[in-house]
Amino acid sequence: MNPVVVNDYIDQHFSEHLSITQDFVRQPSISGEGIGMLEMAELVAKHIRMLGGVAELIPTAGYPVVFGQIDTGAPRTLLVYGMYDVQPVVGEDWLVPPFGGEIIPFQSFGECIVSRGIMNSKGPMIGTINAIDAICKVEGKLPVNIKFIVEGEEELGSIHLPEAVQKAKQKLAADGVFFPFYSQDLTGKVVMWLGVKGLVFMELVVEGGEWGGPTTRDVHGMNSGWFASPAWVLIQALSSMLDQSQQRILIDGIYDDVRKPNAEDMDLLRKLMDTFDPNTQRKDYDVVRFKYDLDGADLLQAYLFEPSLNIDGIGSGHIQEGMKTILPREARAKIDIRLVPSMRPEDVYQKVRKHLDNRGFDQVQIRPQTGYLWAKGSVHDPINQAMLKAYTSLGFEPEVWPLMAGCVPFYAFTDELGMPFTMGGLGHGGRQHSPNEYATVEGIRLFEKSVVNFIHNFKEAEK
Amino acid sequence: MNPVVVNDYIDQHFSEHLSITQDFVRQPSISGEGIGMLEMAELVAKHIRMLGGVAELIPTAGYPVVFGQIDTGAPRTLLVYGMYDVQPVVGEDWLVPPFGGEIIPFQSFGECIVSRGIMNSKGPMIGTINAIDAICKVEGKLPVNIKFIVEGEEELGSIHLPEAVQKAKQKLAADGVFFPFYSQDLTGKVVMWLGVKGLVFMELVVEGGEWGGPTTRDVHGMNSGWFASPAWVLIQALSSMLDQSQQRILIDGIYDDVRKPNAEDMDLLRKLMDTFDPNTQRKDYDVVRFKYDLDGADLLQAYLFEPSLNIDGIGSGHIQEGMKTILPREARAKIDIRLVPSMRPEDVYQKVRKHLDNRGFDQVQIRPQTGYLWAKGSVHDPINQAMLKAYTSLGFEPEVWPLMAGCVPFYAFTDELGMPFTMGGLGHGGRQHSPNEYATVEGIRLFEKSVVNFIHNFKEAEK
Repeated sequence: MNPVVVNDYIDQHFSEHLSITQDFVRQPSISGEGIGMLEMAELVAKHIRMLGGVAELIPTAGYPVVFGQIDTGAPRTLLVYGMYDVQPVVGEDWLVPPFGGEIIPFQSFGECIVSRGIMNSKGPMIGTINAIDAICKVEGKLPVNIKFIVEGEEELGSIHLPEAVQKAKQKLAADGVFFPFYSQDLTGKVVMWLGVKGLVFMELVVEGGEWGGPTTRDVHGMNSGWFASPAWVLIQALSSMLDQSQQRILIDGIYDDVRKPNAEDMDLLRKLMDTFDPNTQRKDYDVVRFKYDLDGADLLQAYLFEPSLNIDGIGSGHIQEGMKTILPREARAKIDIRLVPSMRPEDVYQKVRKHLDNRGFDQVQIRPQTGYLWAKGSVHDPINQAMLKAYTSLGFEPEVWPLMAGCVPFYAFTDELGMPFTMGGLGHGGRQHSPNEYATVEGIRLFEKSVVNFIHNFKEAEK
Repeated sequence: MNPVVVNDYIDQHFSEHLSITQDFVRQPSISGEGIGMLEMAELVAKHIRMLGGVAELIPTAGYPVVFGQIDTGAPRTLLVYGMYDVQPVVGEDWLVPPFGGEIIPFQSFGECIVSRGIMNSKGPMIGTINAIDAICKVEGKLPVNIKFIVEGEEELGSIHLPEAVQKAKQKLAADGVFFPFYSQDLTGKVVMWLGVKGLVFMELVVEGGEWGGPTTRDVHGMNSGWFASPAWVLIQALSSMLDQSQQRILIDGIYDDVRKPNAEDMDLLRKLMDTFDPNTQRKDYDVVRFKYDLDGADLLQAYLFEPSLNIDGIGSGHIQEGMKTILPREARAKIDIRLVPSMRPEDVYQKVRKHLDNRGFDQVQIRPQTGYLWAKGSVHDPINQAMLKAYTSLGFEPEVWPLMAGCVPFYAFTDELGMPFTMGGLGHGGRQHSPNEYATVEGIRLFEKSVVNFIHNFKEAEK
């Protein structure tokens, strides 16, 4: 029962673990394009079975959820939540094949696996499996029971996860949920997030119709002299939803349910100022300045506790090379709104609809793609304390954030099952949703060790 | 010297003329994509030589201009202006191969050639050649000298035409310019236009930079919480340029040089009301309503004598199937402004730049693609009278429009060479710049006959 021994085992078997990790990201699994999904689900199940567990694919109306279980008769049970799908790579320019799992020296990070999914989130998933395997090999038996729920639609907005969780409520019973994630930033600093934002993702579509505009085809551009344009309607509808500084969403009533940070949140924000450097973030993303003229805790508060309205894509007409003077019959935009406590997706959809209707944009169709809640715990939750101790025992003092800007559907567990959650693990990676997604080889090693320690700590943690 | 005899000849040889027309549109010549351009220029030159003329390709910095000449020693000379390039067909859904030159029954129009370029403007070009050939065959000699200038960049905005015209000023000396064009509408009515609008076509580009936004790559959508978005800048910049009704351009000072219609224009607009039916236009384009709440002459006046601001295309980020939550590093739009008397392209570019700068949109880059002037004649110009007589002698009473909404760079002749121009010919076609561009077989026959008559009338017309 000594994590140090297990961690020595990891060092001794690391080249083997690394090779397993490379193989794991080599299997494409692009949910947005339906590529390799079933193969990947089966691969996850295979790995759970190789740990001595049972595993099954639970069908949903979309991609199946992988459920797994290693029952050791221990008093406490940890539920590992993960995802087996990744983002598309179309139109992206990579240094290496995006599904090659190649190890190359990358930028200033030394040896890295550069591959789609290594950061988000197949690397941490297979790292968790390797850590569990190491515990089993060294100690013969796991200190806690482990369950797995691994979905294939995270990148689509976890469409069927809540339903699958509801249906499998009994099966999933556990003392807490763990989402494996590389939590070290560019400088090696460990970051711990106590919560995640919610997400509303929709497509806005304007087509020619009764209101005007060409209804069946793009027409010659000279007709802009007397026909209305769907593209102009979309642009003006969008424009009405955000102020020019991009700091304030103008959708009527959107801030009604935005809650101010509580005392613990404010305390954490202030403490963050000792170690948080905005410049690291800007550098990480190649951005010269923030959209807010704010500093320190105020910047963080705006970033974390205010909703944002983003354009993921917009398209209409002829945008390729060459001049084509047309009045396009259709225009589409994909937008997302990131929800903070205590905004609710269904309210947001209604507010967008009402905002558009009130301004004469009733010809703008809303095609909802997904919508889910934020989730948020406390630094005092025992499961978070187990993760914090895992970090400190390996010599790392984490920065604790009350919320992260990213969206993960933990609400399916927190809201539906009333379960506490933690996300984390050591390791560093980046460029998720971008070309040359990467994770450092040394970080992958540290990740496995931190998960070993976390699992041991979780055994002792009170519910 | 009897056009009726020539027209009988056309009837006797029409199947042969039709087959020549089909072959002419089968040669792809997409200037926007650089496909088949030189082959098409050579084909035009070959046809001019087959008429007994001389022809040469005059190089420009872009695609060559075809110059041709049939000198019969006649006192008067007609310059035929044409284009040998066509619009792209990418992403379009056609009933037949777009460069197949196929004859099929199309919609309610009976037998048609359905092919890219048949309407705009290879059909009228080869029809003119067939008409000239018929005169030569029947009469042995043309009643006027004919010159040709056929450019390959009309669909790119006639980039190098003005320069080529300037350089070939001596060569092009003539008593008038003729642009062959099918001028019958859906109902068979003949329409004559005395002028054309000018065009400014530009790309607006916003990239992340010093002002904010991601500079090197698309980043994860969660960063919309603190990074600015190029797509939002573009949308808000565009939105500031047009009012929500799409009836009024908001670019500062854009209407300063817009001239009111003169007495002849107003007279023609009023006369148009006897025969002009807006519903035919709407039906032709599958549009339910106009953008103006205007009727009759007022609607026409707005359509013809006001500038329009059109979005030809807009693109940013991920707009394909599937959810990809990204903050894109770049956004682009292609827009055109149609110029009416007496707006000038260089002023318009300056006004757009100033408008954007005045509103804090200095990060919006303007990439000019083209800009050219409007051109406008009078119904009393002898060359227009020659065309009008060609119509009436074949039993058609044309509707005369002071201006058309389309853009043709006649200014290169009217402004640079001080030459009068006419555009026309019988015949019906449609869907230019759209899939299933077509022209009726019977219209092609009528076109040739009308050109024969026009050429004979032009001999008599005073300069």
